[in-house]
Amino acid sequence: MAEASVMEKIVSLCKRRGFVYPASEIYGGIRGFWDYGPLGVLLKNNIRDSWWRDMVECPPIGPDGHPLDMVGLDSSIIQHPKTWEASGHLATFADPMRKCSKCGHFVRADHLWDMLATSSKWFDDLLQEFTPISGHIDTERLMRWAKTKGRKLAPNLALVRNPEVTLSWLATRVNGQPDVPVEMMEFTRHIATEQLNATGLQDPCPLCGAELGPSEPFKLMMESYAGLTQTPDNKVYLRPETAQGIFLQYKNIVDTTRVKVPFGVAQIGKSFRNEVTPRNFIFRSREFEQMEMEWFCHPDEARTWYEFWKTERMRWWKSLGVKEENLKLRDHAPDELSHYSKMTVDIEYKYPFTAPDFGELEGIAHRGEFDLTQHQKHSGQKLDYFDQELQLKLKEQGASPEEIKAKSRYVPNVIEPASGLTRAVLVLLCEGYTADPNRPSGEYMRFDPKMAPIKAGIFPLVNKDGMPEVAEKLYMDLRTKFMCEYDPKQSIGKRYARMDEIGTPYCITVDGETLKDQSVTIRERDTLQQQRVSLDKVDTYMTDRILK
Amino acid sequence: MAEASVMEKIVSLCKRRGFVYPASEIYGGIRGFWDYGPLGVLLKNNIRDSWWRDMVECPPIGPDGHPLDMVGLDSSIIQHPKTWEASGHLATFADPMRKCSKCGHFVRADHLWDMLATSSKWFDDLLQEFTPISGHIDTERLMRWAKTKGRKLAPNLALVRNPEVTLSWLATRVNGQPDVPVEMMEFTRHIATEQLNATGLQDPCPLCGAELGPSEPFKLMMESYAGLTQTPDNKVYLRPETAQGIFLQYKNIVDTTRVKVPFGVAQIGKSFRNEVTPRNFIFRSREFEQMEMEWFCHPDEARTWYEFWKTERMRWWKSLGVKEENLKLRDHAPDELSHYSKMTVDIEYKYPFTAPDFGELEGIAHRGEFDLTQHQKHSGQKLDYFDQELQLKLKEQGASPEEIKAKSRYVPNVIEPASGLTRAVLVLLCEGYTADPNRPSGEYMRFDPKMAPIKAGIFPLVNKDGMPEVAEKLYMDLRTKFMCEYDPKQSIGKRYARMDEIGTPYCITVDGETLKDQSVTIRERDTLQQQRVSLDKVDTYMTDRILK
Repeated sequence: MAEASVMEKIVSLCKRRGFVYPASEIYGGIRGFWDYGPLGVLLKNNIRDSWWRDMVECPPIGPDGHPLDMVGLDSSIIQHPKTWEASGHLATFADPMRKCSKCGHFVRADHLWDMLATSSKWFDDLLQEFTPISGHIDTERLMRWAKTKGRKLAPNLALVRNPEVTLSWLATRVNGQPDVPVEMMEFTRHIATEQLNATGLQDPCPLCGAELGPSEPFKLMMESYAGLTQTPDNKVYLRPETAQGIFLQYKNIVDTTRVKVPFGVAQIGKSFRNEVTPRNFIFRSREFEQMEMEWFCHPDEARTWYEFWKTERMRWWKSLGVKEENLKLRDHAPDELSHYSKMTVDIEYKYPFTAPDFGELEGIAHRGEFDLTQHQKHSGQKLDYFDQELQLKLKEQGASPEEIKAKSRYVPNVIEPASGLTRAVLVLLCEGYTADPNRPSGEYMRFDPKMAPIKAGIFPLVNKDGMPEVAEKLYMDLRTKFMCEYDPKQSIGKRYARMDEIGTPYCITVDGETLKDQSVTIRERDTLQQQRVSLDKVDTYMTDRILK
Repeated sequence: MAEASVMEKIVSLCKRRGFVYPASEIYGGIRGFWDYGPLGVLLKNNIRDSWWRDMVECPPIGPDGHPLDMVGLDSSIIQHPKTWEASGHLATFADPMRKCSKCGHFVRADHLWDMLATSSKWFDDLLQEFTPISGHIDTERLMRWAKTKGRKLAPNLALVRNPEVTLSWLATRVNGQPDVPVEMMEFTRHIATEQLNATGLQDPCPLCGAELGPSEPFKLMMESYAGLTQTPDNKVYLRPETAQGIFLQYKNIVDTTRVKVPFGVAQIGKSFRNEVTPRNFIFRSREFEQMEMEWFCHPDEARTWYEFWKTERMRWWKSLGVKEENLKLRDHAPDELSHYSKMTVDIEYKYPFTAPDFGELEGIAHRGEFDLTQHQKHSGQKLDYFDQELQLKLKEQGASPEEIKAKSRYVPNVIEPASGLTRAVLVLLCEGYTADPNRPSGEYMRFDPKMAPIKAGIFPLVNKDGMPEVAEKLYMDLRTKFMCEYDPKQSIGKRYARMDEIGTPYCITVDGETLKDQSVTIRERDTLQQQRVSLDKVDTYMTDRILK
């Protein structure tokens, strides 16, 4: 049996130790949905709270040396359907999908060749028979495959249905033209095509081999109905991003709080996307959680803020203990930009399933005035901003009244640092996962102590002789400040091993000595070093290492 | 103009100061959905974090003097659809609805008479003409109403469509029978009935007066589709409660964590109910947030735990600053119990819109073994529990092997303390709202300091002369520990007034004196007293009052 990949080991540990469970597992699961178990929810909350503290409670210091103006919001998942007309999601938020003409399976058009290469049984098998690298096709071998294994694996493939005709087209194209090597893609299309003149080259279904239909947009927004009847006027959508909720309340926030441009609105919450192929564990799921900010600023300053947030957000990820070499900034190419974006940069992480490449973790988009202008148009509400300070400044500079009037009212531009909270959980799991054959657990989670779900395991060495009382009292003292777990049972080795696996940085053991000298053993997860610490110094020990 | 009710004043303050906004307000709003603004989200997070800290991080001390075993969970909003077959929601989670035969309006059958009494224009108007307290009906007056105002207000009412026939039935029933006073309900049904012999007495639509159709169950669960096609096998539901997610993961939690019965699982998250009549601000909305616990225990101990949680949860609500006289425990009558419940008690709060009566805030239900048994049946997975400790105890007590085997494996019973987080926000808003004509704002929010969204407003008296520098430094020092707001502008009176309205317990002002003696003025919200405190004692001042 092949050794499990790093990703498989992480998924297995997550399930085994209560980080992440498949949702509805007792019913066989439901594709694209995950539950965060007792430890997963603590890890997720730690990331959530760090983001909220660093962005809303203690916003970063801006370029002028003063803290930024930032407020929070928690908008509804379901909003007025016009929101998604205005945002462009109803028109453009779709994946190109192709339906198999025989088995009805859907394939994402832009993933087809990937799928054939990585997860099509028949294609994989065929390639073991045959590699089309030369200008000559071994029709006999193909014919044999078509009539034997092909019948089982790809019953609807043209090559299997009618090998003679199919191969004759291929032979015409290739044989005797040694200068034109047939490429994999062309070869694959040929064996999926029976009536070349009538249909042109076809693409095969990765499952059954039949011809795929044309590419059609498939809407990613999940739909529902709010109200008594399932009529078109009651149709609503589960938000595919939290961002739009911020734009909808932009005006209320300007009108009812003390913020002035430039300012930001931050929000954490669930979003839904009916992903065609949810995959890579919690990386791409249908229900997920986001941490998004919209930063409203003067159009002339948007570029500066874009650069500010790039730096700031990179710094933040590193502050969670993510190693610099596993993070990367990647600018979107112009043809890759979303419909709303003037420029976008992704903060990418080197996930085990992308390595040595990187995958998306956070996107920082310069959305210009797209969203506010769109909502202004669709709602008929004025969403521009009157900049009193700018007015004053222009007046002082001796600008003409016309100029002052024209310049001090504008639609703010928006810089959006948007990241996935559930994706951040994945990053910390991947970052923390460490194989170590030298410890009993064989692997452990090297979380930054402040992000660890449990900060300390508190154990009586044995569950008697006065030790549990002391240990429980220590637990009661520490738990108001640090998430602790009191565990009086099992062998101490097993308890250490479990704490390693769940990434607990400190294990505190009350033993026979404790009763004599009021000291405990603190075992440090990463170094495995054990240290005697006086009972009344444990709080300080922990504070220095976790809250510093 | 009538004076605004307390509730109207609270709703208005919430909008004006950024606690709660109608969702999608720029598009005219969307019924039953609300957004939590910059202050609302802070208040909500404070409640959320208190609950999580007191239930999961520092669980209560149990009857045996040791802290309870409790773990957290964050399960998906969308689960396998079989979940809702098993839970009974698909079959029973419905409101009885009646559709108007003419205008198509839906009325909740059990709310009809309430609606007629409180929100039917035509009925209200008719009652001003006429009060059916005697055994004699003033047909002339009714006829006049039918032919004038009735035509406008209730065009489809039998009395309006055909007053002669309708009134003749009524007259037959009533006139000349002075001993049988006609009751309001009977009177109302009569004027809604044209063909008494054919149809029996009818009920009128509160909007247009036409006959209402029969009562039909209306499903409260919101539906969607996950997957490529909107086919029955892809149909999913937005959870109407977070509880089921806990039952689904009960087995994984027992298998992958160190909990032993009795133990609890706690979860906070959004739920959705397609309420027919969302109302009373955020009390009954279609999207809302819950804080639910399932406490798994031995069947013989369920009653004891039920009582334990009753006491514990009441205590908790009081710890948030809710006054005892505004809280009440109310046992459900047997005919009021949900399908899963053996007994239920509600913790009720005296909301302004229920006063002097009380309305639901939290339900504590004895669910018996209903849920686990149902999921066991529907999933085919064993969800019973093997109680090793009980086994040992029985062995010690000398029980027979058969008895030990029979008794140490069981399906745990469940006690569920389930409350609404968004409803808790409403309670703290109502509890805090205080009219006070003696202060400039005329009203203020008397939140318990630890629940207040902003703990301190930090002001330079004027925005110059070195004061902003000192004030901003103080803000930077305090903000890592307390949510603070730095506000350098407006007159100090306006700043105080705003902080009163948003319930900030302390306002700290840096003035001319500060520069000389390093002291600031701290103004206390409730007493309006001002006190000079040395700059280096401000942290202690706040800590003593908020984190004590």
